[in-house]
Amino acid sequence: MFVFEDSQLQEVIQRFQQIVGEEHVLTQPEDIVDYGADHTEQLHFSPVIVVFPSTTDEVSGLMKICDAHHIPVTPRGAGTGLAGGALPVMGGVVMAFKRMNRILHIDEENLQVTTQPGVITQVLQETLIEKKLFYPPDPSSRGSCYIGGNVATNSGGPKAVKYGVVRDYVLNLEVVLANGDVIWTGANVLKNSTGYALTQLMIGSEGTLGIVTQIVLKVIPLPAHNLLMLAPFNNLEKAGAAVSAIFRSGIVPSVLELVEINALRIVCAYIDNSSIPLREDTEAHLLIEVDGNNMDQLMKEMESIATLLESFDCGEVYFADDEQQKEVLWKLRRRVAEAVKADGYTIEEDTVVPRAQLPALIRSMKALAQEEKVEVVCYGHAGDGNLHIRLKIPGETNSYNNPNVTPLLMKLFERVQQLGGTISGEHGIGLIQKPYLPIVLSDASRMLLKEIKKVFDPKHILNPGKIIDA
Amino acid sequence: MFVFEDSQLQEVIQRFQQIVGEEHVLTQPEDIVDYGADHTEQLHFSPVIVVFPSTTDEVSGLMKICDAHHIPVTPRGAGTGLAGGALPVMGGVVMAFKRMNRILHIDEENLQVTTQPGVITQVLQETLIEKKLFYPPDPSSRGSCYIGGNVATNSGGPKAVKYGVVRDYVLNLEVVLANGDVIWTGANVLKNSTGYALTQLMIGSEGTLGIVTQIVLKVIPLPAHNLLMLAPFNNLEKAGAAVSAIFRSGIVPSVLELVEINALRIVCAYIDNSSIPLREDTEAHLLIEVDGNNMDQLMKEMESIATLLESFDCGEVYFADDEQQKEVLWKLRRRVAEAVKADGYTIEEDTVVPRAQLPALIRSMKALAQEEKVEVVCYGHAGDGNLHIRLKIPGETNSYNNPNVTPLLMKLFERVQQLGGTISGEHGIGLIQKPYLPIVLSDASRMLLKEIKKVFDPKHILNPGKIIDA
Repeated sequence: MFVFEDSQLQEVIQRFQQIVGEEHVLTQPEDIVDYGADHTEQLHFSPVIVVFPSTTDEVSGLMKICDAHHIPVTPRGAGTGLAGGALPVMGGVVMAFKRMNRILHIDEENLQVTTQPGVITQVLQETLIEKKLFYPPDPSSRGSCYIGGNVATNSGGPKAVKYGVVRDYVLNLEVVLANGDVIWTGANVLKNSTGYALTQLMIGSEGTLGIVTQIVLKVIPLPAHNLLMLAPFNNLEKAGAAVSAIFRSGIVPSVLELVEINALRIVCAYIDNSSIPLREDTEAHLLIEVDGNNMDQLMKEMESIATLLESFDCGEVYFADDEQQKEVLWKLRRRVAEAVKADGYTIEEDTVVPRAQLPALIRSMKALAQEEKVEVVCYGHAGDGNLHIRLKIPGETNSYNNPNVTPLLMKLFERVQQLGGTISGEHGIGLIQKPYLPIVLSDASRMLLKEIKKVFDPKHILNPGKIIDA
Repeated sequence: MFVFEDSQLQEVIQRFQQIVGEEHVLTQPEDIVDYGADHTEQLHFSPVIVVFPSTTDEVSGLMKICDAHHIPVTPRGAGTGLAGGALPVMGGVVMAFKRMNRILHIDEENLQVTTQPGVITQVLQETLIEKKLFYPPDPSSRGSCYIGGNVATNSGGPKAVKYGVVRDYVLNLEVVLANGDVIWTGANVLKNSTGYALTQLMIGSEGTLGIVTQIVLKVIPLPAHNLLMLAPFNNLEKAGAAVSAIFRSGIVPSVLELVEINALRIVCAYIDNSSIPLREDTEAHLLIEVDGNNMDQLMKEMESIATLLESFDCGEVYFADDEQQKEVLWKLRRRVAEAVKADGYTIEEDTVVPRAQLPALIRSMKALAQEEKVEVVCYGHAGDGNLHIRLKIPGETNSYNNPNVTPLLMKLFERVQQLGGTISGEHGIGLIQKPYLPIVLSDASRMLLKEIKKVFDPKHILNPGKIIDA
């Protein structure tokens, strides 16, 4: 934990105020308390200063001061992260990006958009949709999360199964380095083999290698149509097996989500929705979307999928007839995490395995829950093999540094690793997944991570305590 | 240039022979001469030893010896690179991968393939096509280049415009580090936010950070149909403008190549083809393909494109009626580089700009050629803004270290940079593009590249002299 000397703190605050203006530097406990938490479990760590820059120059100026004083800086988007990436575990400064919230340029000629990091993902998407453009990656928190945070964690979301993740859309980044230097990591081009992939290295580095201040994204033409359906299964593993079969048939759905029945019950109650028929013998639902420009083709694909699902003992499929019915289904899916968290499932894991291993992961996870006498629900991006697993453990709300929970998660991730999977598909490692990294990365690999960190952040001030320790 | 001491050389040769077998270590000048060149200009640098490992363990064993003796190692695929990445500029060892040529596993359940680096790209593609699977990235040299070399340079090829480049398909890499340690960079999963992106960092690093010994690729279902057409323009800039307009219309072609008329004339003569009508007033052709599973939709897209092209004064469009006619067009496109090189255009640049800047790049490049009194032809992946520019300069066959050529290329890349572009879209920096890196990467960025190199290769033995100097 970083400790300011008294005179140092006053000097830093004054210099921060000179850069961003007095009203954009918070130091009073009641003002900064909210910046000590994000959406990760029930964790809280207090910063000493919260600062709100509005330009790249301001970020650079602030970093120069922090560099000179060796002050830890935790960059913060909307605070919707689930791995503790925005938690200021070492105290010091939280640098929050809500003022850098402008979409700077939509380049319709080149199908690119340049944005500041504090733009809400959904705002970006909707602004693009008006121009018939599509930026696919959107986490469930898209209504509040920032695009900068999405870059920091390499977010995915439900469309990743067809359209890829953040990594597939970022062309170029403006980054403020630890010492305040400003660089562009690449160029605004669709292909780039010019030196090491700094852009790619920065994506998913959770603010530990630099602070992203501008983002250039590739966008694509908006598909004209989509069709959505909800398919119930009375066996969770068969639902998982059906997922793999759909891809093997040659169809690439634009969404292929799985939601376990418990999770669906909880979210239906949570948002007071009774329009979806939930049968007693159902174990899980698949939410499946196809999209494209040719409606006949989409109808055919939906029929093929429905026929294929029958061979996995699928129940009666519910087709969303219009935009309103689609919206109902999407609301259920998007609010699952929030609903089950409110129901006591506070610990969320972000496992990912090769898609066909999904049934084995589900089986293994259920067996483990039974052995350990904990309750679990699962849901997530089944088409990617990315399963979110939520745990309810009586008396425990946090996994971090918790001897009652860590051994259980160790077992879970060991099974994930044995299935060819890894710890995080889209949430990142942040703080809470750090202990499990040795399960999936060898000593040699982790040493490379440490050394890369040192290259970018020799004084260890950029989001220290995250991903890998110095 | 590395110089062996006599006793050291004998010891190294013996130990190499113990690892790979006597017949897989070459040291005689007549045996190794071919390993001193690749397809880059007319450059040649002699190695002292050429070694052919067949397993990861062998690569690791060889690297341990080179590490202990500080011997430079230049990894080599098929030697089809165009930036000099496989040239052993410091002498020492060439490690050639032609024996590591097995496709290890096609995982049809997960749509993944695991391959050794020495598999020829076309062999990989054709093996996958038999299973109705598709691995899109293929350079023009696909009939001879290796997939390992494609990973080293982050290759693109004509399908990149719709399907992306190598970077978009590599899920995981087995890498032998400079000291002989073996790591996997990630996991065989479709999404991964687990630590820094080692996989991505390795892609495009041209053998300077580690030696790739296994590659796990994502593959996709093979589209059922495609349609191909060739469209002549009497104005090169208008052809460039048409490219941008096609994307703005919402259609994403699977191929959108541009070939200047001089290049097409040369290749038609070179392969003795007279089936394509070449009019006097034509300046360039666009080669356009659409693909997908619905033929009606493709016909509509082709018609839309043809209508749109008319507004750019396109001449009479030639539609390929069958597979044979398609093959003719593809042969012309794929052999352009070889043909124009044979015609004296020995210096090739791999410029890339934002797609809509293509007409400006073409204009600028033509003006420069006129100022400097050199002949140029251009062709390439117009849909990506990736234009290959070939120069014919009387008396000059090489650009590297050539005071008669370097200033001209400096001017070219300065213009590319001013257009928002960069040096290489898919060939890499290797040896010959190294002098131009400061035009597009700042001092701070290049310092990061140097420090990253040092992390992976502290003794500077991995393909030294490439991308960035120590």
